[in-house]
Amino acid sequence: MPGPMVSPVDTLTASDAFARRIAAAGDGRLRQALSATVTHLHALIAELKPTPAEWRSLIAFLTEVGHAADDRRQEWVLLSDLLGASALVEEVNTRRPKLATPNTVRGPFFRADAPERPLGSDISLDGIGEGLAVSARVQDLDGAPISGAEVITWQANAAGLYENQQPDLQPEFNLRGLFRSDAEGRFHYRTIRPAGYGVPDDGPVGTLLRKAGLPLRRPAHLHFMIKAAGFETIVTHLYDASDPQLDADALFGVKPELICRFERAADKPCFRLDYTFVMARSKQGASA
Amino acid sequence: MPGPMVSPVDTLTASDAFARRIAAAGDGRLRQALSATVTHLHALIAELKPTPAEWRSLIAFLTEVGHAADDRRQEWVLLSDLLGASALVEEVNTRRPKLATPNTVRGPFFRADAPERPLGSDISLDGIGEGLAVSARVQDLDGAPISGAEVITWQANAAGLYENQQPDLQPEFNLRGLFRSDAEGRFHYRTIRPAGYGVPDDGPVGTLLRKAGLPLRRPAHLHFMIKAAGFETIVTHLYDASDPQLDADALFGVKPELICRFERAADKPCFRLDYTFVMARSKQGASA
Ligand SMILES: [Fe+2]
Ligand SMILES: [Fe+2]
Repeated sequence: MPGPMVSPVDTLTASDAFARRIAAAGDGRLRQALSATVTHLHALIAELKPTPAEWRSLIAFLTEVGHAADDRRQEWVLLSDLLGASALVEEVNTRRPKLATPNTVRGPFFRADAPERPLGSDISLDGIGEGLAVSARVQDLDGAPISGAEVITWQANAAGLYENQQPDLQPEFNLRGLFRSDAEGRFHYRTIRPAGYGVPDDGPVGTLLRKAGLPLRRPAHLHFMIKAAGFETIVTHLYDASDPQLDADALFGVKPELICRFERAADKPCFRLDYTFVMARSKQGASA
Repeated sequence: MPGPMVSPVDTLTASDAFARRIAAAGDGRLRQALSATVTHLHALIAELKPTPAEWRSLIAFLTEVGHAADDRRQEWVLLSDLLGASALVEEVNTRRPKLATPNTVRGPFFRADAPERPLGSDISLDGIGEGLAVSARVQDLDGAPISGAEVITWQANAAGLYENQQPDLQPEFNLRGLFRSDAEGRFHYRTIRPAGYGVPDDGPVGTLLRKAGLPLRRPAHLHFMIKAAGFETIVTHLYDASDPQLDADALFGVKPELICRFERAADKPCFRLDYTFVMARSKQGASA
């Protein structure tokens, strides 16, 4: 009875075989992405040496995440967020000057259709919470004011919930607004102090992270998206310095430059927050 | 207007922050797996520098795969298979002696409930295809026969389809059987030559791989699972040496030792395949 025959196929690991095939397939961004992804995936397998049962658990986890994800709930974005991947994608794409306000993740509660409001408006439509007067300036790297900047802000309420999480309990567009900076680059409005909140933890991603003992909370913050012609758009948070969980933001969004003290106003029964946003010129803007 | 305040939070990349948190969370296999996964995921992001739009495409792809996966269709297993991950998990878990028959992926068409058949049976229940007489021996590393080994075989038909893909067209258990090796470690049966086949390519995984120009076909093969008390179970394929796509198995299962010539039998109007399976003692078996 003959043994195995001499073969036209080399003894290759799956990793070598994949590398060869993808190289033979040609160039292009998709192939580059697949090649890098598989290289790292295979390095992970070689390092971790998952048992077949562990690999099946991974498949089961991905299956669960896939079934939890629907139009209203983006469980994949949550996974990307909680593993620091979303924050890192921001980091590798932002090569802005040191003194410019840093970007962070946008998070899932943004609405592009926030109504424009006059400066000085109160965006707390139900008036529930401790008052906060926000006063800010938008400037360029040289300190010159940027007028006419479009500022969209959004935040959780005093219970840590966004209006689009509670469509029946909060007025529509509560704690959201679009403002334009004035001739001195300033904008100001009234609101309430937001509370920190937990990320959705009732799905497979939350269950996994909880099991691993990783944080699932976000410290209290305000969101801002600031656009001005000729400048890189800012998408960022301002964090409440008094929140004890500042070093454990589940979304890896806290940076030192974004931590602010909400000061008690001397003259009024509310808090106040002063901040200066610094925008970097966009590449197109610089050459225009 | 004051600038940013001095902060209790270090300037950390998301990667450093994740590493710190997971280290603080303690030990254990889950944390080890998460830590290694995130390290490689972050290294991939740092290397590939995906744009936010590219990252959203990845999220969209995962969402599609998740929605394509159901009880009947394991799109995640297919993804793992086609990226060589399943084959590599096999490789890192199999540390068997060089002369033992190598393991490969089990694939999606296995059924554990194949009926036991007497040696010499014909497992082609519809008789469609070119006849093939399989004759094999199961032995240990020293060449001693292993009698009473349980051999489950399964294969595609001459059109490249398994009976559980065509429950209405093929007889149940067509081209499947369970045999036991005799006192000399031998087993033999009759069947037909299988055809190669394409992996399911109508879902998001197939679409992606096709776009990247990667192979989606499997060369013709027979599947075997062989169990014997005291020995490591063999799960493997035997490949038809005449298949021109031997070096492009979509599942990375081809190894030189598993390629066989289906010889034309001198005396009968059929092909014959002779093979020797070599089993390694299991660790428990060796010490027992
Ligand atoms: Fe938020
Ligand atoms: Fe197969």
